[in-house]
Amino acid sequence: MKKSLEPNTFAMPSPVWVIGTYGDDDVPNIMTAAWAGICCGMPPCVAVSLQKPRASYENIIKHKAFTVNIPSTKQVAEADYVGIFSGKKVDKFKAAHLTAIKSNVVDAPYVDEFPLVLECRLVNTIELGIHTQFVGEIISIKAEENVLNEQGLPALEKVDPFVFSSSDKMYYKISGELAKPFSVGMKFKK
Amino acid sequence: MKKSLEPNTFAMPSPVWVIGTYGDDDVPNIMTAAWAGICCGMPPCVAVSLQKPRASYENIIKHKAFTVNIPSTKQVAEADYVGIFSGKKVDKFKAAHLTAIKSNVVDAPYVDEFPLVLECRLVNTIELGIHTQFVGEIISIKAEENVLNEQGLPALEKVDPFVFSSSDKMYYKISGELAKPFSVGMKFKK
Repeated sequence: MKKSLEPNTFAMPSPVWVIGTYGDDDVPNIMTAAWAGICCGMPPCVAVSLQKPRASYENIIKHKAFTVNIPSTKQVAEADYVGIFSGKKVDKFKAAHLTAIKSNVVDAPYVDEFPLVLECRLVNTIELGIHTQFVGEIISIKAEENVLNEQGLPALEKVDPFVFSSSDKMYYKISGELAKPFSVGMKFKK
Repeated sequence: MKKSLEPNTFAMPSPVWVIGTYGDDDVPNIMTAAWAGICCGMPPCVAVSLQKPRASYENIIKHKAFTVNIPSTKQVAEADYVGIFSGKKVDKFKAAHLTAIKSNVVDAPYVDEFPLVLECRLVNTIELGIHTQFVGEIISIKAEENVLNEQGLPALEKVDPFVFSSSDKMYYKISGELAKPFSVGMKFKK
């Protein structure tokens, strides 16, 4: 028996991604985003929602680019910190002991210490309410060699990302393999 | 040292949500979506991307509504099955032994067996490439009582959702708590 609850952002889980942008005078900034996801397969695109008062908001509009930096569980404190404070008041790269590297393909910096980075060109801006959704086409990907699998692709268990739940207000780890997609469901095929 | 990879949908992880819609003659349909995420806090909205040939695509356009049904790990086979086959050819509720319940707030069915459901009204349709992104405002939430925490909110560890990685082509489990948001990062505060 299901109970009705008031509307809220209780879709779960959410990714925890750190968005890299340049501000005025190319000062690099980062902020955490959990209202985000892949939104197109071809061209490959991600959607990231930010609030207008954020420094990153104007940075993305001006530079028409951002990076999605995926932290590992070891970097949870860094990822959390850059979501708490505003880039308008503090140099978050410096405070969190992170290194900004200028992307060679889009006008945005990425986080050198994080294992997986998507370099994105802004293709769409959608006003939805208190959040604005920025859609970025993934132009290139940068990955640490030690997180690649035998096929040279990023391996989730090596990247070791984590997730957020809005209703729990908690970060959770991802553990082992559950099942193979496009396979485990075949048992229902007539 | 980072290696450059070709653009691809390697943002990780992705949620695994099952989208409920009505077709012609109110025949209920479900399909799996991983290109999805929360996209606005107020009003609370989710974004779900589908391809045009999918039965769910026309269903959402015609009925201006959909549900997001969050399966638990125990339901991975059901969730996988409904992502493999088309609702144009098979009654997926019946094949996967799932029960369609008519939402009392939006013109879409939900999956009775899944623990957490978001009932959404279509507010935006954005063509991005091979995928179309549908933004739905969460009008109401339905949750099994046994997945609620002491505050009456959905608890991730009780819902027990799972995630997908595009580069691994694998479903992964979510395990225990990693850290408390807006707290673990305070160690970097000056």
